[in-house]
Amino acid sequence: MTETIKTDVVIIGAGPVGLFAVFELGLLDIKAHLIDILDKVGGQCAELYPEKPIYDIPGIPMVTGHGLSEGLMEQIKPFHPTFHLGEMVTTVEKLGDAQFRVGTDAGKTFECKVVVIAAGGGSFQPKRPPIAGIEPYESKSVHYAVRKMEAFRDKNLVIVGGGDSALDWTLNLQPLAKKLTLIHRRDDFRGAPDSVNKMRALVADGKMDLKIGQVAALEGGDGQLTALSIKGNDGTTARIDCDAMLPFFGLTMKLGPVADWGLKMEDELIPVDMSTFETNIPGIFAIGDINTYPGKLKLILSGFHEGALMAQKAHHYIYPDKRLVFQYTTSSTNLQKKLGVA
Amino acid sequence: MTETIKTDVVIIGAGPVGLFAVFELGLLDIKAHLIDILDKVGGQCAELYPEKPIYDIPGIPMVTGHGLSEGLMEQIKPFHPTFHLGEMVTTVEKLGDAQFRVGTDAGKTFECKVVVIAAGGGSFQPKRPPIAGIEPYESKSVHYAVRKMEAFRDKNLVIVGGGDSALDWTLNLQPLAKKLTLIHRRDDFRGAPDSVNKMRALVADGKMDLKIGQVAALEGGDGQLTALSIKGNDGTTARIDCDAMLPFFGLTMKLGPVADWGLKMEDELIPVDMSTFETNIPGIFAIGDINTYPGKLKLILSGFHEGALMAQKAHHYIYPDKRLVFQYTTSSTNLQKKLGVA
Repeated sequence: MTETIKTDVVIIGAGPVGLFAVFELGLLDIKAHLIDILDKVGGQCAELYPEKPIYDIPGIPMVTGHGLSEGLMEQIKPFHPTFHLGEMVTTVEKLGDAQFRVGTDAGKTFECKVVVIAAGGGSFQPKRPPIAGIEPYESKSVHYAVRKMEAFRDKNLVIVGGGDSALDWTLNLQPLAKKLTLIHRRDDFRGAPDSVNKMRALVADGKMDLKIGQVAALEGGDGQLTALSIKGNDGTTARIDCDAMLPFFGLTMKLGPVADWGLKMEDELIPVDMSTFETNIPGIFAIGDINTYPGKLKLILSGFHEGALMAQKAHHYIYPDKRLVFQYTTSSTNLQKKLGVA
Repeated sequence: MTETIKTDVVIIGAGPVGLFAVFELGLLDIKAHLIDILDKVGGQCAELYPEKPIYDIPGIPMVTGHGLSEGLMEQIKPFHPTFHLGEMVTTVEKLGDAQFRVGTDAGKTFECKVVVIAAGGGSFQPKRPPIAGIEPYESKSVHYAVRKMEAFRDKNLVIVGGGDSALDWTLNLQPLAKKLTLIHRRDDFRGAPDSVNKMRALVADGKMDLKIGQVAALEGGDGQLTALSIKGNDGTTARIDCDAMLPFFGLTMKLGPVADWGLKMEDELIPVDMSTFETNIPGIFAIGDINTYPGKLKLILSGFHEGALMAQKAHHYIYPDKRLVFQYTTSSTNLQKKLGVA
């Protein structure tokens, strides 16, 4: 049995709103663990627009999603949050007053007094390619993410897609694979030009294959692929041996397991009390794009405000006997000590 | 009669929350004029802690009050707000549905559809020095601010105080005055060392006088000072001729005329609807430290959120027939054009 991690607060989602919640909780001496399905912090900002400018973060005329995440990580450093990335929270159970058990798909268990759902639009999940009968192969020989590169050594590997993920993994796995074939529906790639050039050089050197077309059918049994057929744009069909397939068709957002935790939901959003951002279950809060209340705008800056108010109520659950005195970072030596600047 | 300035929105207060409101209104094609009693933007940040670090602006690990104001000014530049600084709003009258008349102590009149009160702790007002019978002289020969330097040419001028305002005006007005005397209660100045040195050099050159002590009594009539007596720390009393006195004893925050505009108030704060931050008077909004609602925290970041939600409701008054489609700065070419980046 795995060890149970005990902490004050589990924050589900390490996007900007989840990250800033660490800061507001930290000022009140509340420790947090963050869990995110992505393999990096920053949420939608990091996944959907790492290099795209954001103009409406107050006080910052322009920042990229990546830059905002970096600023927030720097800001919360004094509070030493613990991150569990590439994991999805699957269960949230109420054990009693101010006590919850949280479980992830990586088998971890947390016990905490407060749960903060900062899950944005929900979980990012890979888009399934339109190939009939793909389900039985999934997570056995069809993978939507690479957890360990070694698992693909000396395999007949097929990568499908035309974006950066497909190209990056092509370049990273080509040296390990017995044979690597990249399949894309047209001879035009959305990925970084440099990656495209490197891939084309490997093809020119005979070190990998590039097929233009779509995967039409899979062959194999018991979840193990043996071959697949490709339908070319010219109507021809080719068949290639294949031990493992990695389709990279992008990510889509799904609400995911949140819907199963007994929370009141409205149109895939979680209604909250506007003065505390607490859900219908005492001790479970929802902040950022996943919540709803009259006037709600799905703005990052609103999620920051929601996190600040949430922390005040969370304090009641974590320190029920302590009176909370509101202080400012600019004037309070006490807060400045926590931030490591006084 | 002075010209009436017509605009969409008058924002009372040019602190960080008032400044960011310009941005949120601007994204919705709403033009704003800002009025502030201070002679610079930034509100409390600029006045009380221009050089002190703030740690809790989301995404910015550390910024001074001055730095935050600069960032916000840069951010709202595309929307060309008009500033009226060093003026106090004295009257706000409702003329009809979505129509207000706003008057200032500088004699300006505005007509607008929406009023946004972002006045923080209220108006910064000069502290009155503890001198018996000073009131009849105020704004006649006792001034708490310098509007026109020329008004002091060839006068017997007394400046009272030991901070930067007292020192700066001493250095600026000494060349104009017939005679200038600086009075401070002790021979130790809080102002910038460089200003102190310059002042002491003028004293050493016989170009001005410095008296250590306190103003004990005023002489004159009909609001016109003729002389004052100074009680020295050694108990002696001196009498000097004086046409005008400028006391700089710092600023204090007072709610000011806001209390007279017919708004519902609670403990000097303005209760608002939490989904729009509208007051009890339709078309008048209150955002930032001056408002109150369940869970309210006097945080700058909350004022930013309040401004964003306020702008949505303000849009209804300014464009009653236009449907508002919510857009993001990161993805909307329309918003990016307004920001001058697309």
